Amino acid sequence: MRTDVTPTARATAWLSCLAEALAGSDVGTAMSLFGSECYWRDLLAFTWNIKTMEGREAIGRMLEATLAATAPSAWKIVDGATETDGVVEAWFTFETAVARGKGHLRLRGDKGWTFLTTMAELKGHEERRGAMRDNGVTHGAFRNRRSWLERKRAQEAALGRTEQPYCVIIGGGQGGIALGARLKRLGVPTIILERNARAGDSWRNRYDSLVLHDPVWYDHLPYLPFPDHWPVFTPKDQMGDWLEAYAKVMELDYWTSSSCVGARWDEARREWEVAVERPAGSLVLRPKQLVFATGSYGPPRMPKVEGAEIFAGDLYHSSRYVGGEEHRGKRAVVVGAASSGHDICTDLWEHGAKVTMVQRSPTTVVKSETLMELGFKGLYSEEALAKGITTEKADLLFASMPFRLMPALQIPLYERIAAQDADLYARLAQAGFLLDWGQDRSGLMMKALRTGSGYYIDVGASGLIAAGEIKVRSGVELRALKKRSVLLSDGSELPADVVIFATGFAAMNGWVAQLVSSEVAEKIGPNWGYGSGTRGDPGPWRGELRNMWKPMAQEGLWFHGGNLALSRHYSLYVALQLKARMAGVPTMIYGAPDGPGAAGPD
Amino acid sequence: MRTDVTPTARATAWLSCLAEALAGSDVGTAMSLFGSECYWRDLLAFTWNIKTMEGREAIGRMLEATLAATAPSAWKIVDGATETDGVVEAWFTFETAVARGKGHLRLRGDKGWTFLTTMAELKGHEERRGAMRDNGVTHGAFRNRRSWLERKRAQEAALGRTEQPYCVIIGGGQGGIALGARLKRLGVPTIILERNARAGDSWRNRYDSLVLHDPVWYDHLPYLPFPDHWPVFTPKDQMGDWLEAYAKVMELDYWTSSSCVGARWDEARREWEVAVERPAGSLVLRPKQLVFATGSYGPPRMPKVEGAEIFAGDLYHSSRYVGGEEHRGKRAVVVGAASSGHDICTDLWEHGAKVTMVQRSPTTVVKSETLMELGFKGLYSEEALAKGITTEKADLLFASMPFRLMPALQIPLYERIAAQDADLYARLAQAGFLLDWGQDRSGLMMKALRTGSGYYIDVGASGLIAAGEIKVRSGVELRALKKRSVLLSDGSELPADVVIFATGFAAMNGWVAQLVSSEVAEKIGPNWGYGSGTRGDPGPWRGELRNMWKPMAQEGLWFHGGNLALSRHYSLYVALQLKARMAGVPTMIYGAPDGPGAAGPD
Repeated sequence: MRTDVTPTARATAWLSCLAEALAGSDVGTAMSLFGSECYWRDLLAFTWNIKTMEGREAIGRMLEATLAATAPSAWKIVDGATETDGVVEAWFTFETAVARGKGHLRLRGDKGWTFLTTMAELKGHEERRGAMRDNGVTHGAFRNRRSWLERKRAQEAALGRTEQPYCVIIGGGQGGIALGARLKRLGVPTIILERNARAGDSWRNRYDSLVLHDPVWYDHLPYLPFPDHWPVFTPKDQMGDWLEAYAKVMELDYWTSSSCVGARWDEARREWEVAVERPAGSLVLRPKQLVFATGSYGPPRMPKVEGAEIFAGDLYHSSRYVGGEEHRGKRAVVVGAASSGHDICTDLWEHGAKVTMVQRSPTTVVKSETLMELGFKGLYSEEALAKGITTEKADLLFASMPFRLMPALQIPLYERIAAQDADLYARLAQAGFLLDWGQDRSGLMMKALRTGSGYYIDVGASGLIAAGEIKVRSGVELRALKKRSVLLSDGSELPADVVIFATGFAAMNGWVAQLVSSEVAEKIGPNWGYGSGTRGDPGPWRGELRNMWKPMAQEGLWFHGGNLALSRHYSLYVALQLKARMAGVPTMIYGAPDGPGAAGPD
Repeated sequence: MRTDVTPTARATAWLSCLAEALAGSDVGTAMSLFGSECYWRDLLAFTWNIKTMEGREAIGRMLEATLAATAPSAWKIVDGATETDGVVEAWFTFETAVARGKGHLRLRGDKGWTFLTTMAELKGHEERRGAMRDNGVTHGAFRNRRSWLERKRAQEAALGRTEQPYCVIIGGGQGGIALGARLKRLGVPTIILERNARAGDSWRNRYDSLVLHDPVWYDHLPYLPFPDHWPVFTPKDQMGDWLEAYAKVMELDYWTSSSCVGARWDEARREWEVAVERPAGSLVLRPKQLVFATGSYGPPRMPKVEGAEIFAGDLYHSSRYVGGEEHRGKRAVVVGAASSGHDICTDLWEHGAKVTMVQRSPTTVVKSETLMELGFKGLYSEEALAKGITTEKADLLFASMPFRLMPALQIPLYERIAAQDADLYARLAQAGFLLDWGQDRSGLMMKALRTGSGYYIDVGASGLIAAGEIKVRSGVELRALKKRSVLLSDGSELPADVVIFATGFAAMNGWVAQLVSSEVAEKIGPNWGYGSGTRGDPGPWRGELRNMWKPMAQEGLWFHGGNLALSRHYSLYVALQLKARMAGVPTMIYGAPDGPGAAGPD
């Protein structure tokens, strides 16, 4: 390893060696450029899949299978490379036979360590933006010219009636809207089905005090970032208004008060029959592609509890909680100790209820301020922007880190957090609250990626618990309900006028079971989690989130979702996959789909 | 003049000499740094006015009067300076006692030629954006906390009823909306009165074929630029939708279906009484500041024509024209040959009417494509953006050019245009159309700044006129109407089923006469034009647009308007003036207000 050469020169030299090897179909040389520990993560560019190859052998197998069709070329380091602790980092661009790509590499010594290749746009199917944008009007004079509004109205009247959409998205929250915007810009006719009356109602209909727990820099939608006065944490009604305005100005074909009530894959015609109910009546849509963007979770999980029928108070799932006003002065029991459980406890306390949280298992808690400072600041913050880390770069940097390496990077972060907020954690423990840092002490983000549950970003509840203002009963289950109380698994009894189950949601493919069939739901298998082998996310190791944003075992079926950041970034890849299929671009998929019986990655 | 020194070093040296002179109150030295021909244009920073000082003596007088209060400091060249044809150009920042500023300078040799100082923000009253943005939620737990929506609803219910706005803006088009957004971010309580039912209706209600004639790069609103797929020329309904979404997400206090029916200055209380009619009833608002943002023009100018009462066809002003469908196959006469006259003629032709344009005086015509290429590309285009000329920089560069110098820069541009499109002009002349390039051959933009009339950016009508598809009768007036025809001033008669007066609008202060009083309208005098001494814009020379965006002879009264670009840029200065007054920041105005008897600038 020569240290007298600049990082940019070293990255350039390495990349040109790789380029030469790939151009010559010399897989062996390409493999030899990587170190003994190495990762190549590909988002569509080589694999038409979302896939991490771990180790030289896996990289070699992938290249043997994909290199001829991919025909990569035009590799070029862009911006200056940097070096930190012996690791050189660089951005690059490249092309394939059908696409232009962006990537990121890390070298340790002179060997590749992490390598990210992503598809950015399809050649010949670029978005019409910047210098390629539409003119908006055809200059000249044309008899019976139709105005923008007339054309828009005619298109809206035809779509779904006389002309079938290529794609239907079930769910018009941020996931459906972000994907819908990408598809609109790519010219993929798409209908978004939203059961609520207005875009944004999926936020507006939640409890009054709900505010995004992630900061604004992490939450932008594609194309139209929030203006720079937007608050750090967006209140839910403001988010609703933003989504509604966004759907309007991005000209999405967004059907409100429209519920999908069933969907069937027509194998002969290779298209979906999607039954839709709207106020004006029922109709059937026949798209080639069907996307579930029904939220990061499946249907609400409402445990069956003995005695529910004799309980005299209010009893419901957290998804139906709208605010504490009606519970003023009442005795409330909240079952569940993750985000919504904490938020609802605080909201009830703020409205003067007497609140007890039933905590069934330990929770990872991190103060919001601490998470902003130690967790988000590097990629998503004003400081990051000032360093030139745009939202797009932050998304790609996050994507550049293979799942295998993440826990080891997260563990020291949570050690720092534990030390910094030791006082809060001591007081929570003192109050009887069960804390954990995840099975391998890798903290909140890994829990989010593994199961999406079991954590709370503290915006106020933890102080109330520590102070005894919110009582906590830990390590117990709710066993039964009586007329005015709940019975816990340790035999104790709590008086209760209202019981709220903040018990989370079923798996996302619960929606597929409900709307398509249990056979299809079983065939595709569960979503989310990456086979970490930790509780709730069993192996085998997959190295990527299951069934998210990529081809599944059922043709024409897709899951899109995740938080605002993942919805933003991965909507690009879902959109490119759909556009390629519509345009007839060959999309040879490398790697078997996830499924209940599928092995891990090769 | 030393040429071995970089442009940046020369600009830095010059600016530090100026800074030293100003810091030492040495007006004589400051004057000596400028050349014999020199201009200092100030937007608020020194003068709390919009004012161009022409020549060393005028600069000296301004400095004598303002230097002590302004206390300028911290002058600093930013970005690299450039040199072209012996002129060094540089950007700089500076501070005053109360504000931070941005500026631009041009040196010829070692002497100042043009010097622009603009106020960018008030110290202690900065917009809460970027790292200063609101948190959106107060972390912690608070009894009876009110949500964002509850606070917003309470504030909306109070404003104008139990709490008076500091400012009322009459007119909710792009001018009122842009200014409203600035005031919102500065925390100035403001109500925007819009007579239509929805924001954006001022565009939607115009004729169907209307499309912006200026390109998208020129048309952004503050804070929230159009996304990059937005068409070059925005169709009017799309513009309407954008304005509606913008007003919503910027949280403007925007009162729809609300008309101002009268306004009176209460001298004793030094506030306005503004009578408002809304569907729910009438009410009176009592703001300290009243802004007319009723459009770039005053009320429609509808000539009284003999025989109007016996004309059997349709007769109306262009502002009421909504589309040609109802005139299919009819004989139409359009009086007026500026933008709306041309657009309406084309729209009628496209709908199959037989159209004659009555052109009373010559028109400046430029093809849209040619104007984009030769007029806009340098400042407002993808090419300009690629060179780092952001919208803000483009606005400041345009502002940096004093009115005195503009015609000489415009004349050669129109000579190029005349040569490039010589064929079109020959064909138009052949068809009897009267062309001109303005009194001093300075073309379209100077006409826009002098009178806002007499030009057409060709998007299709000129080809129809050249081809004889739209007939033209030039150099004549409409003399009288008969039952089914019009009589022209040359004695000829034209059959007519419909007559449309595209005869423009009265002066902007016609709205003041109508809503406040003719006395106040006379006291402030007319708006627009800069005293060029050309037709419609009589002297004395003023060097700035009359009564636009700056203090007038009536306390608490302001005009805001102009096209989208001017509305965007100058809304900043109107907003800063209002904020300063609300906050009690001293605003000593240098220079007498415009008015009918006012002399030119000193």
